[in-house]
Amino acid sequence: MKTRAAVAVGAGKPLEVMEVDLEGPRAGEVLVEIKATGICHTDEFTLSGADPEGIFPAILGHEGAGVVVDVGPGVESLKKGDHVIPLYTPECRQCPSCLSQKTNLCTAIRATQGQGLMPDGTSRFSIGKDKIHHYMGCSTFSNFTVLPEIALAKVHPDAPFDKICYIGCGVTTGIGAVINTAKVEIGATAAVFGLGGIGLNVIQGLRLAGADRIIGVDLNNDKKAWGEKFGMTHFVNPTEVDDVVAEIVNMTKRGADQIGGADYTFDCTGNVKVMRQALESAHRGWGESIVIGVAGAGQEISTRPFQLVTGRTWKGTAFGGARGRTDVPKIVDWYMDGKIEIDPMITHTLALDEINTGFDLMHKGESIRSVVVY
Amino acid sequence: MKTRAAVAVGAGKPLEVMEVDLEGPRAGEVLVEIKATGICHTDEFTLSGADPEGIFPAILGHEGAGVVVDVGPGVESLKKGDHVIPLYTPECRQCPSCLSQKTNLCTAIRATQGQGLMPDGTSRFSIGKDKIHHYMGCSTFSNFTVLPEIALAKVHPDAPFDKICYIGCGVTTGIGAVINTAKVEIGATAAVFGLGGIGLNVIQGLRLAGADRIIGVDLNNDKKAWGEKFGMTHFVNPTEVDDVVAEIVNMTKRGADQIGGADYTFDCTGNVKVMRQALESAHRGWGESIVIGVAGAGQEISTRPFQLVTGRTWKGTAFGGARGRTDVPKIVDWYMDGKIEIDPMITHTLALDEINTGFDLMHKGESIRSVVVY
Repeated sequence: MKTRAAVAVGAGKPLEVMEVDLEGPRAGEVLVEIKATGICHTDEFTLSGADPEGIFPAILGHEGAGVVVDVGPGVESLKKGDHVIPLYTPECRQCPSCLSQKTNLCTAIRATQGQGLMPDGTSRFSIGKDKIHHYMGCSTFSNFTVLPEIALAKVHPDAPFDKICYIGCGVTTGIGAVINTAKVEIGATAAVFGLGGIGLNVIQGLRLAGADRIIGVDLNNDKKAWGEKFGMTHFVNPTEVDDVVAEIVNMTKRGADQIGGADYTFDCTGNVKVMRQALESAHRGWGESIVIGVAGAGQEISTRPFQLVTGRTWKGTAFGGARGRTDVPKIVDWYMDGKIEIDPMITHTLALDEINTGFDLMHKGESIRSVVVY
Repeated sequence: MKTRAAVAVGAGKPLEVMEVDLEGPRAGEVLVEIKATGICHTDEFTLSGADPEGIFPAILGHEGAGVVVDVGPGVESLKKGDHVIPLYTPECRQCPSCLSQKTNLCTAIRATQGQGLMPDGTSRFSIGKDKIHHYMGCSTFSNFTVLPEIALAKVHPDAPFDKICYIGCGVTTGIGAVINTAKVEIGATAAVFGLGGIGLNVIQGLRLAGADRIIGVDLNNDKKAWGEKFGMTHFVNPTEVDDVVAEIVNMTKRGADQIGGADYTFDCTGNVKVMRQALESAHRGWGESIVIGVAGAGQEISTRPFQLVTGRTWKGTAFGGARGRTDVPKIVDWYMDGKIEIDPMITHTLALDEINTGFDLMHKGESIRSVVVY
């Protein structure tokens, strides 16, 4: 079949919207009509050429929502008409990682997904004889796409595609980092570095988890109002204080010994210096710092080991530690029940032809999230 | 009163055994006759001048065992004749850290201990008018010493001082890192970097916890036999393989996806490059790496944040995460019950006059632990 798609033709070049060929689903695969897709920093990271593993030409996009159109042989958990969210982190429920119950990093299709291919080592996308690569196993910048059954979460049929597409990455990553990775408890003190599309979701995750003090950190004072909308209680602009770590430690002094530091800190910037600040803002003895942001190629984090020996823990999270098929439907339900908010974060809605405008808005810092509606 | 002690008169100088003045216990303090003391790398770190917080003159030593000789006003939990192990990490059971149940890093006397003083800001040691500093709140290189009540663990009265003194630091640090910090489960795979006095105790902690595969890593092939004595199942000499991380990952490949890496890794070297290797040898998705070794002043650990984002956790431990008054008596009982071994690790027993020989043996790598018996 034919489908319209925004194709990444090369590093640093604008996406080109065109008609491409799409082969139908093979065994264990599902054809999905994408109804809406968010534009995420990770798409930008790859499109810019900064991602050393980026492959071109490819159809980017990994934050979508849509409807099952057809299923290949052997597909049992999904049928035509089901509403689904594509999962760049699949959940096969059979590999050692899934069975470990200790990680969401399913390994079932890891190798081929990294190569921009379906699990059988081929691509479903092409233009004539020229192969076009899949991206993060999703390629939601195509109106129709093919995914493995294990990479689709079946969700509430009444949920609006143009909002829940954001659960395909940003919402789940932020909320999941709080709930699955940090396991924040009621009454905790937390600091969130970077109040973009991930950071705001960390903040609403902290509110959901019952955190008492939620400190937001951003270079842009406009983000103060944004943070407060989702539960932030305090705001720090690092350019307005001598030392952001000392500031957070001072703000959080408590107890008879007046030792400060957040119980949990989250880096949502991808900046390795900020990752260090986040770690060192964590409380002596038990503070945990979670790296969410993706750093540039070759960049390294560092600190004095004394920070760890005195009881801080440095962790990371991918897709918020969420097991997609199990957890994503729950988060969609939370949205439908009003437990979490998404609508205010979708600042821009675009047509596929306007997709490059979404990247421009991101560059200018004018959007929290732009969503393309097909 | 007068007591014999080995005094650290200055950085890089041998200890000088002499008679010093010791004031009796004040309120909340206890006078202890030290019967035996281990010589630990931390004493060496301070004596060498490498410790930026080292203070001279001081009476070093923090790994002792002895008998209560006298108690000051208000001391209720200890009486004359009790057998005790001094705790450089006290347990007041009242500060926010003790009450948190999340850390052993009691803050009750942290400030004064760091200054080489008793909690009231004075020293009990002197020679004439010249003050001599305490060290790590213990000063076990003195035959008699004064400690706060909260810094003494009351232990089994039949336990031999010349063996259980080692529980005052090395044994508890190694076993505790496994049990309290990593919380290793039965069947786990682990790697231990550095098979000295701490590493061997990590190994016997892993055996106690029921680990399946216990990989020891050391530059010195003589350590293979040492590791095997305490439960090590595999040995790697980094100088004999291309890449120690790849070697450990290969050795531990398992499961349907053949992903390797240890469930738990422990750095017992203090070398920041080894700390990185330990982290990167941990299993994707759930591997935890515990920093135990103390790095040189100003040195930093580093890695790519991708290591964390793909599910590795970087932690540290001090005194093995043990709450001294609660946990140290249990470890003494484990020794008395034959659950853990100490005797083979005490390779040298010396008189106080020979204490500098103990440091020489450490420098030459000839000892696992030297113990001074008074």
